[in-house]
Amino acid sequence: MSGVDTVAIAGLGLIGGSLARDLAAAGVRVLAWDRDASSLAAARREGVVTAALSADFAGVEDADVFVLAVPVGAAPGVLAAAAPRLGRARLVTDAGSTKTSIVAAAERLGLGERFVGAHPLAGDHRGGWAASRAGLFTGATVYLCRTAVSSAESVALARSFWARVGGAAVEITAEEHDQRVAWSSHLPQVVSTVLAEVLAARGVRRSELGPGGRDLTRLASSPAELWADILGDNRARVVEALAAAEAALGSLRAAIAAGDEQAVLAVFRAARAWADAGS
Amino acid sequence: MSGVDTVAIAGLGLIGGSLARDLAAAGVRVLAWDRDASSLAAARREGVVTAALSADFAGVEDADVFVLAVPVGAAPGVLAAAAPRLGRARLVTDAGSTKTSIVAAAERLGLGERFVGAHPLAGDHRGGWAASRAGLFTGATVYLCRTAVSSAESVALARSFWARVGGAAVEITAEEHDQRVAWSSHLPQVVSTVLAEVLAARGVRRSELGPGGRDLTRLASSPAELWADILGDNRARVVEALAAAEAALGSLRAAIAAGDEQAVLAVFRAARAWADAGS
Repeated sequence: MSGVDTVAIAGLGLIGGSLARDLAAAGVRVLAWDRDASSLAAARREGVVTAALSADFAGVEDADVFVLAVPVGAAPGVLAAAAPRLGRARLVTDAGSTKTSIVAAAERLGLGERFVGAHPLAGDHRGGWAASRAGLFTGATVYLCRTAVSSAESVALARSFWARVGGAAVEITAEEHDQRVAWSSHLPQVVSTVLAEVLAARGVRRSELGPGGRDLTRLASSPAELWADILGDNRARVVEALAAAEAALGSLRAAIAAGDEQAVLAVFRAARAWADAGS
Repeated sequence: MSGVDTVAIAGLGLIGGSLARDLAAAGVRVLAWDRDASSLAAARREGVVTAALSADFAGVEDADVFVLAVPVGAAPGVLAAAAPRLGRARLVTDAGSTKTSIVAAAERLGLGERFVGAHPLAGDHRGGWAASRAGLFTGATVYLCRTAVSSAESVALARSFWARVGGAAVEITAEEHDQRVAWSSHLPQVVSTVLAEVLAARGVRRSELGPGGRDLTRLASSPAELWADILGDNRARVVEALAAAEAALGSLRAAIAAGDEQAVLAVFRAARAWADAGS
């Protein structure tokens, strides 16, 4: 990350805030904007953020790297607001859970050469500056997605930038990324939320569940707005994954209803073999 | 648990084995049968079980309490095999995940007065003698379900018996129990298994999941045979719970597909409110 003295971060939530903490601790000057003035004030009070940026991003011209860490629904608009002032930035990256739409937005805004999308697999169900912490990215996979025209220098810088906070970069196309997370991340989130919804409607309290049931419903505490954004942005792929889960659930229900023990056993054995292989 | 010197346990899996360890540590003489001779031999070698019983339960006459801790599908047959020799037992209890069918079986076998069904909420996804351990029941809710004719003495003894190993008894009817666990336990298990099945079929490895996704698929490692039994035994209630989950999943899928952000937000907010209230 040679020559990177100043990083600007838009959004001081769990991801942006944690990134700011690690960068500041490494001696990097952090400029930041957040729509929530109190998060921004707290980050300055704690000495993590050197200077607050306003919504028009005046002053962002000083940044060597610009990081977009706002909800995916807001990201294209925030990037468009900052774009006119990003002439000097050698890398523009982000931290969103979907990649196709932000990569396309960067290309449209003429930032394609210097943009490399990123998705650090380091969230949890808490959000906001209050949840941010040092070391969040240690050991985390960070998916990197180029635009059609990302320069070799910007890709190399994205790798060293995310490595600097402990991430392990994995390059992947934006399309492949969004397909993969529809199944590995968005489907589990929806399953947890739907299970919680059904139990709530039935009047079962979470405290009545065993440890396994509590594990299954932990993700249901995730912020609604973030997820409505993500699912909307990755709509077609998520709908395909959910349809597959519905079909599998319906098929197992039918086997149980019919007393088809062999079919039930086959599903449970396949699921167990998969789970045991990956644990 | 006054006057209880000898307890016989049928089945030395996670539940029966853990119960045997706690009872033996408390100075109780433990007689046991298991269909797996090596589990039985290990339990004797470790000094947990004093005497092994054969499949005809010769010698079980010495027991003050008889505990059925075999899979729910096998339980009525094992109880029938032991019943002719249980003349002296003051309490016959069990540890199965469903209660209606075993309570009915005890009544049919003429054991109704001395039978009090039990379900300790203390399992995990591992099974067998190797997974058994001291203290498994500490602080666990233990549902107790009477037959139509359970005596006051047998109910009092069931309470003190389960309290002796650290459980907190909660009385409930067998029907109410089976309804409740269909939603609070069987539904989460099936959801975890189905999610694992779908991810396996899609070629997603468990190691690709984040912490939340790994939480959601932990229960998928549960033993297939145990669960095929439980789901078969609680069939009608489980089918109702699964149908509710399918409907909720389908409804959220439709809202996502239609771009109905308000509907998506409403589901996520309801789920989050429930999860946060119970965490």
